[in-house]
Amino acid sequence: MSTESGISLDELRLAARNHAMPLEALRWPITPVGLHYLLVHYDVPLVDPIAWQLEIGGAVDKPSTLRLDDLRSLPAVELAVTMECAGNGRALLEPRPISQPWLSEAVGTGLWRGAPLVALLDATVPSERAVEVVFTGLDRGVEGEVEQRYERSLPLDAARDAGCVLAYELNGAPLPPQHGFPLRLVVPGWYGMTNVKWLSAITVVEEPFSGYQVATGYRVRQNEDEEGRPVTHMRTRSLMVPPGIPDFLTRERIVDRGPVDIHGRAWSGRAPIVRVEVSVDGGTTWSDARVERDPDHRWAWAGWSYRWEAAVEGRCTLCCRATDETGETQPLEPEWNLGGYENNAVQRIPVIVR
Amino acid sequence: MSTESGISLDELRLAARNHAMPLEALRWPITPVGLHYLLVHYDVPLVDPIAWQLEIGGAVDKPSTLRLDDLRSLPAVELAVTMECAGNGRALLEPRPISQPWLSEAVGTGLWRGAPLVALLDATVPSERAVEVVFTGLDRGVEGEVEQRYERSLPLDAARDAGCVLAYELNGAPLPPQHGFPLRLVVPGWYGMTNVKWLSAITVVEEPFSGYQVATGYRVRQNEDEEGRPVTHMRTRSLMVPPGIPDFLTRERIVDRGPVDIHGRAWSGRAPIVRVEVSVDGGTTWSDARVERDPDHRWAWAGWSYRWEAAVEGRCTLCCRATDETGETQPLEPEWNLGGYENNAVQRIPVIVR
Repeated sequence: MSTESGISLDELRLAARNHAMPLEALRWPITPVGLHYLLVHYDVPLVDPIAWQLEIGGAVDKPSTLRLDDLRSLPAVELAVTMECAGNGRALLEPRPISQPWLSEAVGTGLWRGAPLVALLDATVPSERAVEVVFTGLDRGVEGEVEQRYERSLPLDAARDAGCVLAYELNGAPLPPQHGFPLRLVVPGWYGMTNVKWLSAITVVEEPFSGYQVATGYRVRQNEDEEGRPVTHMRTRSLMVPPGIPDFLTRERIVDRGPVDIHGRAWSGRAPIVRVEVSVDGGTTWSDARVERDPDHRWAWAGWSYRWEAAVEGRCTLCCRATDETGETQPLEPEWNLGGYENNAVQRIPVIVR
Repeated sequence: MSTESGISLDELRLAARNHAMPLEALRWPITPVGLHYLLVHYDVPLVDPIAWQLEIGGAVDKPSTLRLDDLRSLPAVELAVTMECAGNGRALLEPRPISQPWLSEAVGTGLWRGAPLVALLDATVPSERAVEVVFTGLDRGVEGEVEQRYERSLPLDAARDAGCVLAYELNGAPLPPQHGFPLRLVVPGWYGMTNVKWLSAITVVEEPFSGYQVATGYRVRQNEDEEGRPVTHMRTRSLMVPPGIPDFLTRERIVDRGPVDIHGRAWSGRAPIVRVEVSVDGGTTWSDARVERDPDHRWAWAGWSYRWEAAVEGRCTLCCRATDETGETQPLEPEWNLGGYENNAVQRIPVIVR
């Protein structure tokens, strides 16, 4: 368990700032604030909510400027949305792409409340040649030698999807600073990088956006010469609450012989979860878990449970894998790519039965 | 900046779960929930607040059992308390002690509200031979091959100190699960390990407690044969908000030439901060910063600020160091010990002026 991973000081610095969700937090259907995963590309900006405003413009007939009270006075929606970092699982790849060194748990589910994006977008009357919408945050830094504000685009159709929310609340309270106060974009089903925080501008454009976070970052490709494809929706994935008690240093689990109830969550950005399987022998044989989907929360993870009879003393490896309605299931081994994105290989939890 | 640090997978697993406070969060006098540093030895327990109760007993005349409502009905105190992990700075030591690999920022300041410990303790009438009080949490795991609940003791005098609080609120809301819901001990001025979370029992004892977290962990010593001394109060320390904008991967700062206002915080568990100095040449020469102590918040960090005239293009290293009323100041180089505790060496922020 103490394999040298050769993590560099750069990666450790990122791991100290950003944080995953401790796996036992899978017990909560809505992740408590502070347990939800967090990735901040640059610095968390300190935003004065009185001075802050949102500019909606670009290739539109009726650009607008909104203050926080304007947004709060609109009809609101509240959605439970599971959000996963596109780089989740990166540090399990070999060779390891150098960036935030996530293991398995860069995920969380928030209850996001705000104004539907489609209403605001339609009110500006986008031009007939509009193809994309660019979302600009207030966080600024240098990445890949490019100085930038954090910016991502969505195809106009995706931005008009009824699920997109301009969120000003998380779990019933104003957004915490680290999750985008006073306003962030929430795009159900997409990986986390799409959900632009500290939103300051929404710009309709007539040419595809070529900013760093779309054209260079967040692309699935094997080498730098390849154009690759953009990272979009979350792939099918499941995680379990590691049973038993942990060893402090190794996080290895100690489980007493007898029946063990294993609980977890599963999600996919493309379609509902239809199946979760558990293996107690490292992925050789599989048994169906019981899946508890909540149709009222289409964009939130589904709970699942499995009764394991831990009969034999010794070491074993627990695994889980989910399948969604499109038939996508999780691979046993990761699929490598240059940026370390979309690694949805099955989770492996080493356990000692005593 | 990309030195291999050889961080092991065990350490990375801990770094992914636990998290420091991003340094820009020093801007807030009270750290927002989710930005305060967090160290969880075992797992965050899921506690039913209705079933939960606190047992106060041991060598006392009148043991008692309290429910959350009992505690909430007592006169309450609210204190702003700066809390730092005893292992903060561990990963900057050479050789690096293997545990949670903190860099510089395992700290935060919370507004803790709860019942004063002294009143509850005195009501139980401790025996005349009582020497210590043991605080037991609900989190359970294996550490140093010892299976245990997390437990720490305080000398009776320290436990009776007017500052100790049995806290059920953080920043105006019920404790989040990861900070000890429904109740934690808060001991102003002491390192974080003293502030036992998920508190379930308080036990007065007539012999010094010899549990793992006091007798083995959290001792300053050079080798395992040495008894060493216990870790207690936070040493003098200061940190700054890194100025300018960061590079995503290296976290190196880019600063424009001209006047730069540098802000930070400083604290000591033993005495008020009386001086903060800043160096812009890596610690060769020092200038006084302006310190803004708030006498109403004795146990919270003091703010400080410094106007830097960044006149010359190129690389430099910014440092800060604080001094408290006892005269303790921060060393330029860390003082090594086996567990990697109490590293209060001056912070170093590499900057590129352009």
